[in-house]
Amino acid sequence: MAYNKFNVFHWHIVDDPSFPYQSRTFPSLSSKGAFHPMTHIYTQSDVRRVISYARLRGIRVLPEFDSPGHTDSWGKGQSDLLTPCFRRGTPSGSFGPVNPALPSTYQFMARLFKEVSSVFPDSYIHLGGDEVDFSCWKSNPYVRTFMHKMGFGVDFKKLQAFYMENIMNITSALNKTSIVWQDVFDYHERITPMVEVWRQGCYLCEVRKVAKAGIRVILASPWYLDQPGPTRNWAHYYTVWPLAFKGTEEQKKLVIGGEVCMWGEYVDATNLTPRLWPRASAAAERLWSDEKQTSSLDKAFPRLQDFRCKLVRRGIQAEPLYIGHCKHEYQDV
Amino acid sequence: MAYNKFNVFHWHIVDDPSFPYQSRTFPSLSSKGAFHPMTHIYTQSDVRRVISYARLRGIRVLPEFDSPGHTDSWGKGQSDLLTPCFRRGTPSGSFGPVNPALPSTYQFMARLFKEVSSVFPDSYIHLGGDEVDFSCWKSNPYVRTFMHKMGFGVDFKKLQAFYMENIMNITSALNKTSIVWQDVFDYHERITPMVEVWRQGCYLCEVRKVAKAGIRVILASPWYLDQPGPTRNWAHYYTVWPLAFKGTEEQKKLVIGGEVCMWGEYVDATNLTPRLWPRASAAAERLWSDEKQTSSLDKAFPRLQDFRCKLVRRGIQAEPLYIGHCKHEYQDV
Repeated sequence: MAYNKFNVFHWHIVDDPSFPYQSRTFPSLSSKGAFHPMTHIYTQSDVRRVISYARLRGIRVLPEFDSPGHTDSWGKGQSDLLTPCFRRGTPSGSFGPVNPALPSTYQFMARLFKEVSSVFPDSYIHLGGDEVDFSCWKSNPYVRTFMHKMGFGVDFKKLQAFYMENIMNITSALNKTSIVWQDVFDYHERITPMVEVWRQGCYLCEVRKVAKAGIRVILASPWYLDQPGPTRNWAHYYTVWPLAFKGTEEQKKLVIGGEVCMWGEYVDATNLTPRLWPRASAAAERLWSDEKQTSSLDKAFPRLQDFRCKLVRRGIQAEPLYIGHCKHEYQDV
Repeated sequence: MAYNKFNVFHWHIVDDPSFPYQSRTFPSLSSKGAFHPMTHIYTQSDVRRVISYARLRGIRVLPEFDSPGHTDSWGKGQSDLLTPCFRRGTPSGSFGPVNPALPSTYQFMARLFKEVSSVFPDSYIHLGGDEVDFSCWKSNPYVRTFMHKMGFGVDFKKLQAFYMENIMNITSALNKTSIVWQDVFDYHERITPMVEVWRQGCYLCEVRKVAKAGIRVILASPWYLDQPGPTRNWAHYYTVWPLAFKGTEEQKKLVIGGEVCMWGEYVDATNLTPRLWPRASAAAERLWSDEKQTSSLDKAFPRLQDFRCKLVRRGIQAEPLYIGHCKHEYQDV
């Protein structure tokens, strides 16, 4: 990352299939929710090591504890946290997103985020909030009663907004600035501190909407690298213009950066490096450098090829851009 | 390859950008045509080592010396081999496919293939013959005169057929059975000994045509792995039925196998293994096993996941099929 001038490691550290973060406060979360409670976890010292390794390379580590969705694994180690789903009036045995109707949920989150805030020194924290499936909430009569009491009617977006607002209050009391995925902004009338735009389609429309609302924004949509596209996708990365939306100078200043996303469904240690590099390098150069000097693809190609060889020489298994070879391969002949 | 029961290594050892095979008879081919004459070559002992390493694992090594196209690099070390292209009646300075009009071409090929036949002990040899661009031949007045003399008119397919027939005669005199890409069959009226079907589209139509002509056929079209598709492409590989064409039992017996192709434009040592495995494993299982027992994707998925873990445990960086982990990762805990 440092070789490519990436300076924030957004660590999506837990998700549906596994809760590998070993919490001091709630050790059951990983002992019951991780793939394996001893080998497939990030211990407190693992996390400290990652943070200090990154710090020495000028990289901040920013954790994401995504909720209320993407929390299947949380439920294994913490009972009464997830919403019980109902079928024909009785519990079906399966669970949905975090239960926003119980006070205990917020007590749990306050304690968890208190710990997380002290473990991760960065002043930002990512709270997720994406892809919440409302069907389980809808099925649950207690959730519906709660909504009625709160005056939400049957608007589950309001329920999610209520939940996210509570979580944001918890983390802001801990002096953290929260970041959320664009879904929260779309559902939420109140101002959120910072929004990350990830959906495909007209992502600049969304960037514009967020900036118009006076909210800072991070763009991720055009740089999803987990799906194995052709290496030559790098060419598309140079054509992304995050500020090419109608807006004032002030609004454009609210676009504070771009993020390259690598998810884990199809990627692990066996293929992470070649899938990431040198494609991510293209996005990084384009974001860091003068747009006018870097928008020519013809000129970028040999530059990126050279840079890819530099990465390979340094031991990074960056995949080839096209036919050819690296000069360092016969340096000492 | 052996773990997956692949038993033939089709080694496409030379191509347009580079001629890395170090020939005893024509050392200039690699000293002038390889990326680097000392580091980016396969020496005679490299080749011997590959063949014996493969032999001990039950794998035959079958070389491809593709001509008359895909030969840019050949021209660097062998003058008068490639066809000079003309522009407005004068040589343009660029070169096209091998020159089929010169007797010296066939003398050169006879000597080259004599060497190749002794270096590679397998009784089969791949002669290529794919993707020949006729425009340079068309531009060259000497080639056109030759065609006239031979009675080919302006049918450049006849010229290619003439060329391939000569090369096949050379290799058959050396007791080798030749294999060619489907292009040669399409252009050629005479019987070719064995055809490899590679083009996308209705590949079974082509398989049927070849089998109907009484010619043995190898199918490669559905298993091109060099383009980075989703790992879940493995599912498509199970749905390929190479014998699902209208034909007699005799004709179906002419389909002697399938080949998984990995080309080099976007692949080198940095990403070869995860791009190849476990996707190729799916094609291999489907081709080797009883079709009825292996056509259920639901049953294949956990089997392939297990097998992928087995490969990883053996040190093969096979990429993940989906979310999860391998049990051997906590075997001794």
